[in-house]
Amino acid sequence: MKIFCQKSELNKALNNVSHSVPTRTTTRILEGILAEVFEREMKFTATDTNITTEATISVSADGTDSFVIPARLFSGMVSKLPEEEVMLEYEAAKTKLKVKSGKFKAEIICFRADDFPKVRIAESDDKIYISKDTVKKLIRKTAFSASEDELNGVLTGVLTEIDEKSIRMVAVDTFRMAVYQAEAAAGRTARVIIPAKLINKVSKIISDDNSEDMMSVDIVDNKVIFRFDNNKVTVNTLSGNYIDYKRIIRKESEIEVRIKCDEIVRAIDRASILTSSQNNKLIRIEINDQELKINSLSDEGNIQEKIDVIKEGNDITIGFNARFLMDVFKVIDDEEIMLYMKDNVSPCIIKSLSGEDYLYLILPVRIN
Amino acid sequence: MKIFCQKSELNKALNNVSHSVPTRTTTRILEGILAEVFEREMKFTATDTNITTEATISVSADGTDSFVIPARLFSGMVSKLPEEEVMLEYEAAKTKLKVKSGKFKAEIICFRADDFPKVRIAESDDKIYISKDTVKKLIRKTAFSASEDELNGVLTGVLTEIDEKSIRMVAVDTFRMAVYQAEAAAGRTARVIIPAKLINKVSKIISDDNSEDMMSVDIVDNKVIFRFDNNKVTVNTLSGNYIDYKRIIRKESEIEVRIKCDEIVRAIDRASILTSSQNNKLIRIEINDQELKINSLSDEGNIQEKIDVIKEGNDITIGFNARFLMDVFKVIDDEEIMLYMKDNVSPCIIKSLSGEDYLYLILPVRIN
Repeated sequence: MKIFCQKSELNKALNNVSHSVPTRTTTRILEGILAEVFEREMKFTATDTNITTEATISVSADGTDSFVIPARLFSGMVSKLPEEEVMLEYEAAKTKLKVKSGKFKAEIICFRADDFPKVRIAESDDKIYISKDTVKKLIRKTAFSASEDELNGVLTGVLTEIDEKSIRMVAVDTFRMAVYQAEAAAGRTARVIIPAKLINKVSKIISDDNSEDMMSVDIVDNKVIFRFDNNKVTVNTLSGNYIDYKRIIRKESEIEVRIKCDEIVRAIDRASILTSSQNNKLIRIEINDQELKINSLSDEGNIQEKIDVIKEGNDITIGFNARFLMDVFKVIDDEEIMLYMKDNVSPCIIKSLSGEDYLYLILPVRIN
Repeated sequence: MKIFCQKSELNKALNNVSHSVPTRTTTRILEGILAEVFEREMKFTATDTNITTEATISVSADGTDSFVIPARLFSGMVSKLPEEEVMLEYEAAKTKLKVKSGKFKAEIICFRADDFPKVRIAESDDKIYISKDTVKKLIRKTAFSASEDELNGVLTGVLTEIDEKSIRMVAVDTFRMAVYQAEAAAGRTARVIIPAKLINKVSKIISDDNSEDMMSVDIVDNKVIFRFDNNKVTVNTLSGNYIDYKRIIRKESEIEVRIKCDEIVRAIDRASILTSSQNNKLIRIEINDQELKINSLSDEGNIQEKIDVIKEGNDITIGFNARFLMDVFKVIDDEEIMLYMKDNVSPCIIKSLSGEDYLYLILPVRIN
């Protein structure tokens, strides 16, 4: 069977599915990509059983068949092919795939398709249509706050709450929380916890491919199915009770500080030079009147920098893990932000001035 | 004592000397940079005892003193300073350096200068003046061929031969050799072996700094001193007998092949996909008439590609370690090159068609 296709399309599809190929496995076939050939299209599938990515390209083929190709070898080869025109030829009897492009020829030993794990899920009629940009933004602005420790169960996931008019993602770890809400005409309600690692992969695949604006999200049993362009990504969700994150959010704050984002980012970056190798990466923030002073200290020396702020409420001296602050400031696109504090042991809340619907919460580090 | 200087100059000087700061040491003072302050200039020195780099900048100071600053902390801090104007203030009694720039302030605990190893070498009157570009080219085109195995003694170095009119660098490892010669009105003769690791550092420092075209090279006892712009780099040489590399170079070759450099580079790159994880990275080259065929083979499959060449002499089938070929082709700037071969067990010689004076020699891998 001969298959004619374009290098650029093939390359993009293989890049997308490669995110789901497990890096280490005892089952060699899982390090492969399932290729299913129809007369006018070819579908590639890779899975590590927690995340499955399918990508379809247009081809011209003189038959139908399916087989499994070693992922790393095939992706590496395709990215380097000399010409845009590619001919693939599959010899079923020898499970061998020939690849031709210009004066380049190769043969790749494949696996039989029967052994590849295949999951068929009935999709629902209740899909949510949402812009790709919104999904990427939701993920970028929350997933970094999820726990990286597998022992923390559901907290390694991103809680995704959908109602008629909006979609909200929430990520909570021991010392911090991120909540981001975007408008979306979902037309249904749902509540699932998606592992942060997997949702970050989904975000990467979306970024790699941007021909259409909209995508669909479907929630079926314990799986979420993302469809965009010619890709379909299915991820397993986490089961369990997510914490009542709304209860953690303090309603009243005694101290409110308005800060220019780029100024505090650069000052924290400089103060961190001394403490980046310390465990708690402690920086001390002292706000007196309309002046914020950032301090850091180690046995090599000390650093101090001042920035102007607009403050209401009492003066305060409070300690933070610099990384937690930086993680938040890095994903904020606003020029200015508001910090809400109560005292130097209660969580600090970071919110928007622009009306964008985010809330970050960071627990202080105790200082003497 | 107060010192006023410019961030950009300070940053460049610290970058240059940082190449000589040892990464791991039991003597903490060696992880520091010696700063010597005079009224109008400040000199920075770092050394790992094998290579010593000095860089001088203009300052305005109200005294003279010297002290040792922790290298990583100070370099990191300076690169991030908010303003171009920098004020340093050294408190000798507390061995403490204050750094001020804009609203940024820091204090760094320093070491006393007395404990810093200081080498004073009398320079000769017999310096060689040569363009920086020529030195960088000589290093880039040869040093990669030196042995990385410390057990190989002098072969971890680059033999540098200077005569009245030219300078030549030679690097030899078990399976390959590189020779590059450039014209230079040296006006003297010399022969030294410079460790490849150190000469690569010299090359990096030269690249970081390109205000003047020319530099000087001075050979004193067992040291070579490179001077360029406001930098001085001193490296220890290796002692011992270098092999008689000229004897290895075969004068007569039965097979001569003219090849387009970019075509063979891309073909080898593709063929290497299969064999990059193999120990000997074997690719097989078959030249029949005016066609060169590159083959590679693994248990995952095989790759074959053809390119057109101009050949004189017999047909040949010969095996190579793909990395050795690629290392050579990467540093060649010519569009076409000549391969000279005798049979598939004798070294293959690569030379220029353009008149550039280089010679590379690669031992084949035995094939059946």
